[in-house]
Amino acid sequence: MLQVAVIGCGMTPFGEHYGKSLRSLVEDAYLGAVKSVDKGFDPQEIQAVWYGTLASSWASFPIPDFTGLRELPVSRLENACATGSDAFRNACFSVMAGAYDVVLVIGAEKMNDEPCQSLWDYQAMENWNIGRSMPGVFALRATRHMYQFGTKREQLAMVSVKNHHNGSLNTRAHFRFETTVEKVVGSRMIAYPLGLLDCCPMTDGAAAAIICRADIARKYTDAPVQVAGLGLATDTSFGAMTDEQLVGFPTTTKAAREAYRMAKLEPKDVDVAELHDCFTITELVSYEDLGFCPKGEGGKFVEDGRASLEGDMPVNPSGGLLAKGHPTGATGVAQIVEIFEQLRGQSGKRQVPAAEVGLTHNLGVAPEGSVGLVTIMRRSR
Amino acid sequence: MLQVAVIGCGMTPFGEHYGKSLRSLVEDAYLGAVKSVDKGFDPQEIQAVWYGTLASSWASFPIPDFTGLRELPVSRLENACATGSDAFRNACFSVMAGAYDVVLVIGAEKMNDEPCQSLWDYQAMENWNIGRSMPGVFALRATRHMYQFGTKREQLAMVSVKNHHNGSLNTRAHFRFETTVEKVVGSRMIAYPLGLLDCCPMTDGAAAAIICRADIARKYTDAPVQVAGLGLATDTSFGAMTDEQLVGFPTTTKAAREAYRMAKLEPKDVDVAELHDCFTITELVSYEDLGFCPKGEGGKFVEDGRASLEGDMPVNPSGGLLAKGHPTGATGVAQIVEIFEQLRGQSGKRQVPAAEVGLTHNLGVAPEGSVGLVTIMRRSR
Repeated sequence: MLQVAVIGCGMTPFGEHYGKSLRSLVEDAYLGAVKSVDKGFDPQEIQAVWYGTLASSWASFPIPDFTGLRELPVSRLENACATGSDAFRNACFSVMAGAYDVVLVIGAEKMNDEPCQSLWDYQAMENWNIGRSMPGVFALRATRHMYQFGTKREQLAMVSVKNHHNGSLNTRAHFRFETTVEKVVGSRMIAYPLGLLDCCPMTDGAAAAIICRADIARKYTDAPVQVAGLGLATDTSFGAMTDEQLVGFPTTTKAAREAYRMAKLEPKDVDVAELHDCFTITELVSYEDLGFCPKGEGGKFVEDGRASLEGDMPVNPSGGLLAKGHPTGATGVAQIVEIFEQLRGQSGKRQVPAAEVGLTHNLGVAPEGSVGLVTIMRRSR
Repeated sequence: MLQVAVIGCGMTPFGEHYGKSLRSLVEDAYLGAVKSVDKGFDPQEIQAVWYGTLASSWASFPIPDFTGLRELPVSRLENACATGSDAFRNACFSVMAGAYDVVLVIGAEKMNDEPCQSLWDYQAMENWNIGRSMPGVFALRATRHMYQFGTKREQLAMVSVKNHHNGSLNTRAHFRFETTVEKVVGSRMIAYPLGLLDCCPMTDGAAAAIICRADIARKYTDAPVQVAGLGLATDTSFGAMTDEQLVGFPTTTKAAREAYRMAKLEPKDVDVAELHDCFTITELVSYEDLGFCPKGEGGKFVEDGRASLEGDMPVNPSGGLLAKGHPTGATGVAQIVEIFEQLRGQSGKRQVPAAEVGLTHNLGVAPEGSVGLVTIMRRSR
C-alpha cells in the first residue's frame, strides 16, 4: 500500500451564504487549497477529483465548471453526515492503489438554500410528529446516558461552552460568541434535555484538500501531513436498537478500531481531535466510543477540562459543528483542514501545542441506519 | 498496484417491479452473486461494500438492513448514469490499495416508484419546455451526425433491432420482443429523429458483483475475471458545446483512453462490449468514441453487422439499455455481470464465441455536465 500525504487545504468561512452560489463556495475552497501549497502548485497536476455533497447538487457534473478542471475523473460521494470524509477516504484509496499521484477532494453544502432546504422540510414533515427529528434522536441518547451513568445536564452544556470558546478564536467559524453553562442550560428547549445551544446550526460552506503520494509530497511542501488511518462502518439504526446503541454509536467504535489498526496507533497517541458534535451529547458519547475515556465517563472527561484547548486531549479546537457549523458535505473535509493546520502549527490562538497525531470523526444517524468514519493523520518528520 | 478479480455476479430480472421493494431487489441481486461463486462463498468474508444508487435511497444506510451485513464499511456512490460503474471503480481502488481483500458492489434503482419518480417529474418540468428532455439532448446529436456524416435514420434503427434481438434471448431483459427497421422508424415520434423504439425504457432492478484480490481469487473459482482497466472522465456539457461534443462524447474518449492505457490494450483487442445505448444514437456514436471504428462511420459499422452477435465486435449481447433496461444505479453493475458471464462462457443463446476481453461503458449527460466511464475486463488464463 502506497502512503498518502495531505499537501494543501482550503475552506470558506462557514456561515449563512445566501449571497454566494455553490460555485463560488467551491471555487473559494479549491483556490484556497491550491494557494496553501507552500512551494507552489500548478492545478494541472491534479489527476482526479472526489466531490462530496449530500444534496446541494448531483453527480460529478459541477466540478469541471466550478473549478475549470476539464475532463478529469470525478466521483461524487454521498454518505449522510460522513459525506465529506468518505470522499476523502475514497480519494486516499485511489492514491494508495497507485491509480493517481495527485488528487483533489472537495466537500460542499448550501444547507440554507434549495435543493437542500426542501429535503430538510420533507424529512421534518415525515418524522417530526413521532419525535424522530434529529434533536429528538440524539436527545434519547442523552436521557439514557444521564439515567445509566449519572451524566449531568451541566456536563452536556460544558461541551457547548468549550466549543463556542474555541469557535470565538476561529475566524472561519459560523458562531463566534462565548457562552456559559447557565446560558446553555437556559436556552430554548428543543428536545429534552437538549436546548438550542446544544444543537449545531444550519451552515453553508465548502472545504478542499489536495493529497498526493507521500513519496512525492516534499516536492510541494516541507511539512506534509501523512494519512495514517481510515475507518468506516455502517449499521442499522432504530431497526435493532440495543442498550449499546442507546449509550453509544457502535459504528464509531468499529470505524475507530479499523483506523487505529491501520495507523498502528492507540487512542492515547492522539494529540488533537475534531469530533462530530452535531449535538453536545454526541461529542460526550464519542469521547467514550473513540477510547479517550471509558464508557460512561464522558461527562467527567469534559468537566475535568481534558477536552479543552489546554487539556491533555483537546477536542474540536475549530469550534466543532456546534460553533464552526455543519454544512454536511463540507464538514468532514473541514475537519481534515483543521487537523492539517494543527499538525503544522498554523492554528494561531487555538493552536494545540506540539500536536503530532490528529483524528477526525464523523457520525451519521437516521431512522434508516447509522454511519461512523474516523481518519487519523500524523505530522511527517 | 494489486490486481483485482471478479469472482461472482448476480442480478434481478430487469423490468417494472412495483411488486418488489428496493430491499427485495438488492437482496435478490446480492444473494445471486453469493450463490454464483463456484466453490462456495461465506458472506462473512465480505469486508466492505460499495453501493450505487442515483436516487432510490440515500447514504449507505440501507445496506446492513437489506443484506444482513452489519457494521461493515459501506460507501454510497452517485454519478448520474455512471453510478453503478463508479461504485465498482471505487471498490476496485480499495482492493488495489490493499485496504480490503473481498468487497461487494451493489447497484440498484426503482425508476418507476418514489423517490425517483418525483425527480424525473421535476427535471422534466424544469427542462422540457425548452427541449432539454433527455431524448431532446440526444436527438440533437443524431441530427448533427446525420448532417455531418450522412448517417441514415435506418442505421439508427438497426441499433434498436439488434439490441431487441439480443434482449429476446435474455431472460433477464425488460423487453423480450423482436422488432424491425420499419417498426422503429415508424414508432411514435419522441424527439426527431428518435422514435419510441430508439429510447430505453424506465426500468427497475438491481445487480451485484463480488470482487477480491486476484491472488486469492482461485480460492473461490477456477474462472475469475480480471479487472484490467478503469477510466472515468467528467466535463462541462452545454456550457461549452463544440463541434466535437455534438458528434461525440469527449468524456467517453477520455475515459476509454485511460482504461485502455491501464489495461495495456487497444480497441481491436476487445471481443465483446456492453455500451451505454440509452438511445440508438448513443450506441452508434460510442462505437466511434471507443475506437471500434473511425469517427463518422458508426452507421456503416452497425449496418455491416459488425456489432451483431455474429459480428467481429458484438455490442450489447444482453440487449443493452434499449431492451434489457436502464435502472440507473444498477446499469453499470449489470454490464459487469454480462461481461463476467460472457468471458466465462455462461451466456447461453447470446454467447459471444471465445471472448477473452470485454468492455463496459457508461455515459451520463445533463445540462450541467457529462460523465463517461469505461471498464475493461479479461478472462484469467
